[in-house]
Amino acid sequence: MGWMADETGLEKNAANFVPLTPLSHLRRAAKVFPNREALIYGPTRLTYKDYYTRVTRLASSLATRGVKPGDVVATLLPNTLPHVEASFGIPACGAVLNTINIRLDVDTVAYIFAHGEAKAVLVDPQFLPLAEKAIALLDGDPPEIIEVADARAGHPASGKYLEYEDLLASGDPEFAWVMPEDEWESLALNYTSGTTGRPKGVVYHHRGAYLMTMGTPVSWNMGLYPRYLTIVPLFHCNNWNHSWMMPALGGTIVCCRDVTPKAIYDAIADEGVTHFGGAPIVLNMIVNARDEDRKSFDHIVEVFTAGAPPPAATLAAVEPLGFNVTQVYGLTETYGHVTECLWNGPEWDGKPQDERAALKARTGVPFPQMEDITVMDDNMAQIPMDGEATGEIMIRGNSVMKGYLKNPDATAEAFQGGYFHSGDIAHQTPDGYIKITDRAKDIIISGGENVSSVEVEGVLMHHPAVNLCAVVAKPDDKWGEVPCAFVELKEGMEASEAELIAFAREHLAGFKTPKAVEFGELPKTSTGKIQKFQLRKQVKQP
Amino acid sequence: MGWMADETGLEKNAANFVPLTPLSHLRRAAKVFPNREALIYGPTRLTYKDYYTRVTRLASSLATRGVKPGDVVATLLPNTLPHVEASFGIPACGAVLNTINIRLDVDTVAYIFAHGEAKAVLVDPQFLPLAEKAIALLDGDPPEIIEVADARAGHPASGKYLEYEDLLASGDPEFAWVMPEDEWESLALNYTSGTTGRPKGVVYHHRGAYLMTMGTPVSWNMGLYPRYLTIVPLFHCNNWNHSWMMPALGGTIVCCRDVTPKAIYDAIADEGVTHFGGAPIVLNMIVNARDEDRKSFDHIVEVFTAGAPPPAATLAAVEPLGFNVTQVYGLTETYGHVTECLWNGPEWDGKPQDERAALKARTGVPFPQMEDITVMDDNMAQIPMDGEATGEIMIRGNSVMKGYLKNPDATAEAFQGGYFHSGDIAHQTPDGYIKITDRAKDIIISGGENVSSVEVEGVLMHHPAVNLCAVVAKPDDKWGEVPCAFVELKEGMEASEAELIAFAREHLAGFKTPKAVEFGELPKTSTGKIQKFQLRKQVKQP
Repeated sequence: MGWMADETGLEKNAANFVPLTPLSHLRRAAKVFPNREALIYGPTRLTYKDYYTRVTRLASSLATRGVKPGDVVATLLPNTLPHVEASFGIPACGAVLNTINIRLDVDTVAYIFAHGEAKAVLVDPQFLPLAEKAIALLDGDPPEIIEVADARAGHPASGKYLEYEDLLASGDPEFAWVMPEDEWESLALNYTSGTTGRPKGVVYHHRGAYLMTMGTPVSWNMGLYPRYLTIVPLFHCNNWNHSWMMPALGGTIVCCRDVTPKAIYDAIADEGVTHFGGAPIVLNMIVNARDEDRKSFDHIVEVFTAGAPPPAATLAAVEPLGFNVTQVYGLTETYGHVTECLWNGPEWDGKPQDERAALKARTGVPFPQMEDITVMDDNMAQIPMDGEATGEIMIRGNSVMKGYLKNPDATAEAFQGGYFHSGDIAHQTPDGYIKITDRAKDIIISGGENVSSVEVEGVLMHHPAVNLCAVVAKPDDKWGEVPCAFVELKEGMEASEAELIAFAREHLAGFKTPKAVEFGELPKTSTGKIQKFQLRKQVKQP
Repeated sequence: MGWMADETGLEKNAANFVPLTPLSHLRRAAKVFPNREALIYGPTRLTYKDYYTRVTRLASSLATRGVKPGDVVATLLPNTLPHVEASFGIPACGAVLNTINIRLDVDTVAYIFAHGEAKAVLVDPQFLPLAEKAIALLDGDPPEIIEVADARAGHPASGKYLEYEDLLASGDPEFAWVMPEDEWESLALNYTSGTTGRPKGVVYHHRGAYLMTMGTPVSWNMGLYPRYLTIVPLFHCNNWNHSWMMPALGGTIVCCRDVTPKAIYDAIADEGVTHFGGAPIVLNMIVNARDEDRKSFDHIVEVFTAGAPPPAATLAAVEPLGFNVTQVYGLTETYGHVTECLWNGPEWDGKPQDERAALKARTGVPFPQMEDITVMDDNMAQIPMDGEATGEIMIRGNSVMKGYLKNPDATAEAFQGGYFHSGDIAHQTPDGYIKITDRAKDIIISGGENVSSVEVEGVLMHHPAVNLCAVVAKPDDKWGEVPCAFVELKEGMEASEAELIAFAREHLAGFKTPKAVEFGELPKTSTGKIQKFQLRKQVKQP
């Protein structure tokens, strides 16, 4: 350990040690960029000075209404401007921000209210019925509802509750923010989607969020003054921590309540959006936009995409439109993205489109703020980096959660051996890039051969008629399991089972080719993830 | 404080908490960018894999030779490739890196060896006489000399000491780095030039250096894969922490032993250098380069300049040549730059050249990793931001030193009231930008080096003919400022300007030696205090 022989007087003090927190970014931005545009929502435009003042008023009002440091304050809001303000305003009174997914069912929201013990919840009028029904199911003290009206979007205040702007008006614009005294204090509480059982409450520390905001600009090549569109919901890992990051860069957030092709093109062309994150489905939206929804622009938009590798066909279609797509990977437990399919500069620029797409389909390498992300076997030993051997993605670094709220057993299990166990199965190519081959439970074993459903899906996605697909294991008398594809076709397009099977066979080994294709809408979670377990159930029925 | 009611199981562990250290950047780079060019020195080119291996060997060999964690290892090296390696290799065995200014005199180097208790020192053959003479003055154990030959530059090994490449050859390329267990452990020891008496040993913690490396890419708009020229000496705030930063960006360092106009133009044109830092004198070098030393290039080179505001004439001359200049400000105590004259984007782009120059002459606003840098009056109250009122620049944030080694009194004084007291006098414009108007401490900045007028006066006072003297900064086209001495001779005694300059040179480094001497009675207050401000006025007159 690097302690010198005599360190008298070299202790931490107020001048040389400040707990790391994203709150510092907005305090600095209010001084360094007071007149720059910080937030845009429709006709509303706030400078950093305005933004800071409104956040301060929010924090002050919450404190006045009895919210104490360490209390939880929830949100049930789309990506509106007040939601971005709340991401600072709630922590600025020392409270823990609990953004709740607006697509959840009443039962789950009630569970989250009860488990997280929210003292208050900011609710958009559209989701008031959801909040009210969930509260009706509670035994204990319900959270106080604060209504966040959005009249312009067709959601005026119901009048039944204190309204957000009135709350702000009552706040003290000179209120002193409650800054963390320890950077390990809790900043946010985010519930996982949980495909089975109850969701788990992931707790973020201030330190981790701060370091996410410092690593992301490097990985995303951002520079100062980016213009960012909120497509990623603020209830997904707090918008992948991007809202907390923007003040550090003097950037502008363009809020997008409803994600439509027109909204995206408008924001890019009219507001000069330079960056956004989103699932591959957003890329499909852009590619398949109707002509009247498109607008031309002459800059390159940087896109982080996560949730699944961007299909080669999508990349080939979207890049010529002015988008540079980079795949990132992470989980709620890691504050969002912690690996990136880092582009290796000019060396790869000249490669043919299919090779570029294959490179971009990889899960990638660790973000700058992460210490070690790699793939290990069951004994927690590094797997060979040969593109063949598979293991579990293991994660160590400073943007990893504190743990699961009131669930020390699940926490201990997740952190066994000093790494966070992702549950995702991957191989590594000789250059160290990780590539997810399957979720832990998503391997099809057919005739003793492993089949990656991701690979089969990737091929089917190239078919011009396929909009979305999922491949699962179907029990088979002869082979044990065979791949079975579930397909959503594009509007107005047609394809037969035989045609898709033949198409797949052109690109895949025989054992990997789906033996059956089912057409119809795929079951999805509230976050838009395909519920493969539903499909597995379905294929197991005789 | 943001602790939740129940935080069972939410403690730090190996998966979610890693002490912050720049060492992590190189470990990651060796995995993420193994084949990218990391270091260039003349014909030598190292990839990150090579770089990492050589650093590992260095750390291993030092450990084998008895260097223990917390021990000090010094350098007396120009900006050669081994010096960059040592900036990682010395800390990688847990030791504290003490880069010593090669321009110092024997006495001061001896003082630093004794005070810092270096166990070993890496020495370039050119500075071997300096090291040997300093060691000859020591009472206690001298540091072991390791010679770092640079035959290509005309400095082959003397053969008297263990040579650097032999040291590396004996190292274990699989050695496990000694990573800090606490990010407050000591990383580096940098001696200030000392405004009064002996230099003070500024101690850096790992945390501060890490956060410098994360804030700088944002402020400098760097993006990935910059190509950086080492003009700032590695013994100035460890190259402003830039060497520690580059692996986080996959960047390339081009080492420059002798800073000449030709070397700079060659590096830009032939190696594609995109970034460097340097004193304003470097800008003058570029502007005044001989035609045969210039080369054309077609990108913009980003330059951080510090030590003095870039003169308007220099800016007007250098910018059309392809350089974008940004003034930064900091001290050894703050790891280098902590404010930047941040350019406010398109809003300022169209202004006339003289207005742009005036904007660029300001000291600026805090870097992203800093909490608060502002100007305060004697009662530590914020001054009015009116461009008139002046006060002292006060600094609070995570890249502030631990304190001065073995000097708790000076440390406590520097940190009084929870801010680091810079000693620099400034005003603030209404937009919050700081502008230095004067220096509280009596420092002359000559060619980027700090010169203590008190030290120079002390030497001159030893001359038998000198009755009284005062040394102030005289504006100089080449060096920015040079020391100018005002001397009252003893009655009946005589001494010429040349004689006094030669006398000073015997006892002082070249850059500290007065370049001019004026004889006459010194202006004094009624209490007999020398009125230096009068002398400063006098030297500024044409």
